Amino acid sequence: MPVPVIIDCDPGHDDALALMLAAGDPAVELLAITTVAGNQTLEKTTLNARRVCTVAGITGVPVAAGCARPLVQPLRVGGDVHGESGLDGPRFPEPAVEAVPEHAVDLMHRVLSAHREPVTLVPTGPLTNVALLLTRHPDSARHIREIVLMGGSIGLGNTTPAAEFNIHVDPEAADIVFGSGLPVTMCGLDVTHQALATAEVLARLERLDTRLARLCVELMTYFGSAYRRLWGFAAPPLHDPVAVARVIDPDIVRCVEANVAVELHGRYTRGATVVDVHKYLDRPVNALVAVDLDVEKFWDRVIAAVDTLGRRVP
Amino acid sequence: MPVPVIIDCDPGHDDALALMLAAGDPAVELLAITTVAGNQTLEKTTLNARRVCTVAGITGVPVAAGCARPLVQPLRVGGDVHGESGLDGPRFPEPAVEAVPEHAVDLMHRVLSAHREPVTLVPTGPLTNVALLLTRHPDSARHIREIVLMGGSIGLGNTTPAAEFNIHVDPEAADIVFGSGLPVTMCGLDVTHQALATAEVLARLERLDTRLARLCVELMTYFGSAYRRLWGFAAPPLHDPVAVARVIDPDIVRCVEANVAVELHGRYTRGATVVDVHKYLDRPVNALVAVDLDVEKFWDRVIAAVDTLGRRVP
Amino acid sequence: MPVPVIIDCDPGHDDALALMLAAGDPAVELLAITTVAGNQTLEKTTLNARRVCTVAGITGVPVAAGCARPLVQPLRVGGDVHGESGLDGPRFPEPAVEAVPEHAVDLMHRVLSAHREPVTLVPTGPLTNVALLLTRHPDSARHIREIVLMGGSIGLGNTTPAAEFNIHVDPEAADIVFGSGLPVTMCGLDVTHQALATAEVLARLERLDTRLARLCVELMTYFGSAYRRLWGFAAPPLHDPVAVARVIDPDIVRCVEANVAVELHGRYTRGATVVDVHKYLDRPVNALVAVDLDVEKFWDRVIAAVDTLGRRVP
Amino acid sequence: MPVPVIIDCDPGHDDALALMLAAGDPAVELLAITTVAGNQTLEKTTLNARRVCTVAGITGVPVAAGCARPLVQPLRVGGDVHGESGLDGPRFPEPAVEAVPEHAVDLMHRVLSAHREPVTLVPTGPLTNVALLLTRHPDSARHIREIVLMGGSIGLGNTTPAAEFNIHVDPEAADIVFGSGLPVTMCGLDVTHQALATAEVLARLERLDTRLARLCVELMTYFGSAYRRLWGFAAPPLHDPVAVARVIDPDIVRCVEANVAVELHGRYTRGATVVDVHKYLDRPVNALVAVDLDVEKFWDRVIAAVDTLGRRVP
Repeated sequence: MPVPVIIDCDPGHDDALALMLAAGDPAVELLAITTVAGNQTLEKTTLNARRVCTVAGITGVPVAAGCARPLVQPLRVGGDVHGESGLDGPRFPEPAVEAVPEHAVDLMHRVLSAHREPVTLVPTGPLTNVALLLTRHPDSARHIREIVLMGGSIGLGNTTPAAEFNIHVDPEAADIVFGSGLPVTMCGLDVTHQALATAEVLARLERLDTRLARLCVELMTYFGSAYRRLWGFAAPPLHDPVAVARVIDPDIVRCVEANVAVELHGRYTRGATVVDVHKYLDRPVNALVAVDLDVEKFWDRVIAAVDTLGRRVP
Repeated sequence: MPVPVIIDCDPGHDDALALMLAAGDPAVELLAITTVAGNQTLEKTTLNARRVCTVAGITGVPVAAGCARPLVQPLRVGGDVHGESGLDGPRFPEPAVEAVPEHAVDLMHRVLSAHREPVTLVPTGPLTNVALLLTRHPDSARHIREIVLMGGSIGLGNTTPAAEFNIHVDPEAADIVFGSGLPVTMCGLDVTHQALATAEVLARLERLDTRLARLCVELMTYFGSAYRRLWGFAAPPLHDPVAVARVIDPDIVRCVEANVAVELHGRYTRGATVVDVHKYLDRPVNALVAVDLDVEKFWDRVIAAVDTLGRRVP
Repeated sequence: MPVPVIIDCDPGHDDALALMLAAGDPAVELLAITTVAGNQTLEKTTLNARRVCTVAGITGVPVAAGCARPLVQPLRVGGDVHGESGLDGPRFPEPAVEAVPEHAVDLMHRVLSAHREPVTLVPTGPLTNVALLLTRHPDSARHIREIVLMGGSIGLGNTTPAAEFNIHVDPEAADIVFGSGLPVTMCGLDVTHQALATAEVLARLERLDTRLARLCVELMTYFGSAYRRLWGFAAPPLHDPVAVARVIDPDIVRCVEANVAVELHGRYTRGATVVDVHKYLDRPVNALVAVDLDVEKFWDRVIAAVDTLGRRVP
Repeated sequence: MPVPVIIDCDPGHDDALALMLAAGDPAVELLAITTVAGNQTLEKTTLNARRVCTVAGITGVPVAAGCARPLVQPLRVGGDVHGESGLDGPRFPEPAVEAVPEHAVDLMHRVLSAHREPVTLVPTGPLTNVALLLTRHPDSARHIREIVLMGGSIGLGNTTPAAEFNIHVDPEAADIVFGSGLPVTMCGLDVTHQALATAEVLARLERLDTRLARLCVELMTYFGSAYRRLWGFAAPPLHDPVAVARVIDPDIVRCVEANVAVELHGRYTRGATVVDVHKYLDRPVNALVAVDLDVEKFWDRVIAAVDTLGRRVP
């Protein structure tokens, strides 16, 4: 039985691959796609979700736009990494997939309430929509099996020295999610920086010889140039699919139990996920925190999913 | 033409009088009543709103429950001031008024969108619902004429040395409201502590000789005993009706323009409204801040409203 | 028996009068004068202390310079209030009083240790020197009878909406002093704004008909123009002598017991003295906080001291 | 020409080895030893410095006690790591070395001022003394060649998830040091956790076959059992000698330039050293930050120093 999931995302190059992995892997059933402002404005991330669905042949999955800005602070987009469109690199056709005229949190709530069993939420952007869902529809909590998110870091951040982008964009939302009492799995930079789209990975994608695979290569190539320019990475880390991979097969992402607190108040550390691996702070465990990635299995699943979808679309 | 208003409240003794003032004064048209957790839990404040509508004959105005807890932090109720029920003192009959099965922010949004002209929001509790409205329904902003709220303080607080109760319960919500760009009028302790329900006021209410007026006296008597016990006040301040009075007749509450920032990060000052009367901080004006109350006019309107309603109910 | 005092100051117009009050009033014995950066740089405040001693005939009292900057943060001087020299207005003769070649805290420590009985410290500037004294010479504590300081505010600040100048310049030093366990009396803006050098006060000084009194009038006139320009005050508040007056005669300044916490961490409230008059925070009393000034007695003592000194100098 | 150094320490097992390395290695000239509260109370760390000098034959180097508590916050000692005495494990003889009757910062100042060339400060405890030196004797700055300290972390902390012990004990002092404008080299956990006193290291010490070497083994054995119990380390990291090693031979500790900010205000991150390796924060470089240790060279120098001293003492 595939695991039912809702992906809440801000595509974003790595979100695009996360959507393909969720749509193309037989272990998950993608019930809905919701969008949030983050890597780019809501308008752009929603358009990008529709573009990805179009080129990857993801049809029949409702797409709904959510929050255009973080709960408390102004929006700061990740345009330096993802480009002006949020998905720079390839040329996309006119999207054939429309968004439904429903707010993301209402779609989430409806899908959660209607599904025959609890559903896994996979947020791969700032946690604004998820926090709003829990605030506006608190009864949703009992329909959520777990929240497996991409975000945070045990070690360094990638937006400030202490904070990872998704959490830094909306720290209050992250605080709401980590404090919700729901099972949360945090896939942070500690593991996503192991998911590098190396030349070898790109070569494997090339060999799939589908239009979709080639588009993925173009996406990874643009993303790689940004990571090389900004951080000197030899290959770009494919953050978001790691969270989906954890849902597909927990063995791909090894986790440890820990308390995760979101720093809301620091002068230099706002948005940091303070992961208390050594239990210094005497606070209860509230999350599973990813610490290691089975890199081979990860890429096998990603490439297989791209292959599956690529053969399906004309 | 009466000013159309929605009251978002957490009754609460003074909220009860605010509702009566709004329902009984000809200068305002009460379109809806929404409830929030604050003085007591959401369940209790909603029951109390229904009780007040019942005894005051406020019918035909929809009542809807909203948020059961603040956006980010846990709820801290004001039970020491308002008692176990949130409206301790009188005995209330079984409420005849029901709440509508709609979330407060959806009711607000629907009423705002449907009304022929912009509507004034009058929040008299924590600002959770209003913040959620602006987050979930950002298009509401263009239907809001202004937000006239009871909350905050230029000087001392009443929950910590620096923070007033409504803001202290949900500082992030307050930050969202003051940062919304909408016209905000803040009626804080600086003026509401001038609205004292003195023995003379109670005597005037007694002389109305209606069941409702006697209930109001009972409410004020309980409230007064709490204020005497907790702060040594000779008479209790009727905070919430001051915001309604400002809408009824701006001359009743004199205001000055200022920047108001909500302190989210202090160790001893979280929830303080930092009112920059002297423009020390080089931040733009974002609020009108109440500095003086025409006490006589205020009580005239309150007592007249209680009289009007009291004669109408059997 | 006069009370032995050390004045730690940053002259400053009102510091100048504080020094004269301490030197001219028979109820106190001025043992030493130490200077700190605040109203102006250390170089200027030290020169100003020497100037005041020279014109007021305060000889035989050692003057020593202390800290040139706050403990943790950079210095921000009060040049807008006190002018470029820190004592703008009158023309001063070349100072005849020299500073001793000893650091303020070492002079303080030596004087404290040598005196036959505990000594009262009267800081009228930022608390950097006093904090350094307690840090470098912790045994000083047992020679200090009490610390009666000018600084802080129960209500609004005068440098930010929440913070008074002396505390705002060096909040960590203030935290050290209020947390020292020593008896601290805080004379804040709540009382010093009652010590207004009105036209009537200036007229009384004029009538003394001494060179020193005329210089005081010139100082107050400059100070008054700054207060009129910056805050619209009709007359300038003579902050610092209030602390000296409290030592001279406790009845001049009525105080209440309270916990005072210095906010170090707020975004808008750093440097605020959070005075817990209503015991909201469950913290122990650590200070007497001035709440009322006997204005008449205050000016009688100030004017008498200026008179005494003015007749003594040639 | 050996590099002249002053070691400011809170012995502590690893401080003990740092003292021996500084005293026994020909590349440095140890001018003075000052003590501070940290791993244990000032009384104990001072006694321990005298004990180490006694057993290691470090004579003719003045030892002076400094601050008994951090600048602003109360002291929290590291008794769980270093034991009740601060140097648990071996039995020490009655110390033959006395402390001089001078405050640490005055000794530092005197030695700095008297030395023919600028001196390197090597703080291996909380930075209270160094901050006080810069505050009380600001002219010391021009006699300081550089400050090479053990403290902080680029990655995780060892006292809270974010903060290393020395910085966490006195964050304000650390802020003063990193903000001083002096050349600062930070040897944090990132490198000191590479300096593991493994079984092989202990075996090399054993083979020296001196009384001092055996005592070092006893120290390391106790320290190792604490690290095993508290953090599951297989061998204990010898933090403090790393800073001395950096002075002895810069090639032993590879560093990168970065801005280091000390977080003073976070709820979960106070005391963190925020090292801006990727220049996210647009702040100037103010430190060299150690990122790699030449483990072999490091132990060669430590063991050689213990050998040198061990042969010298009877």
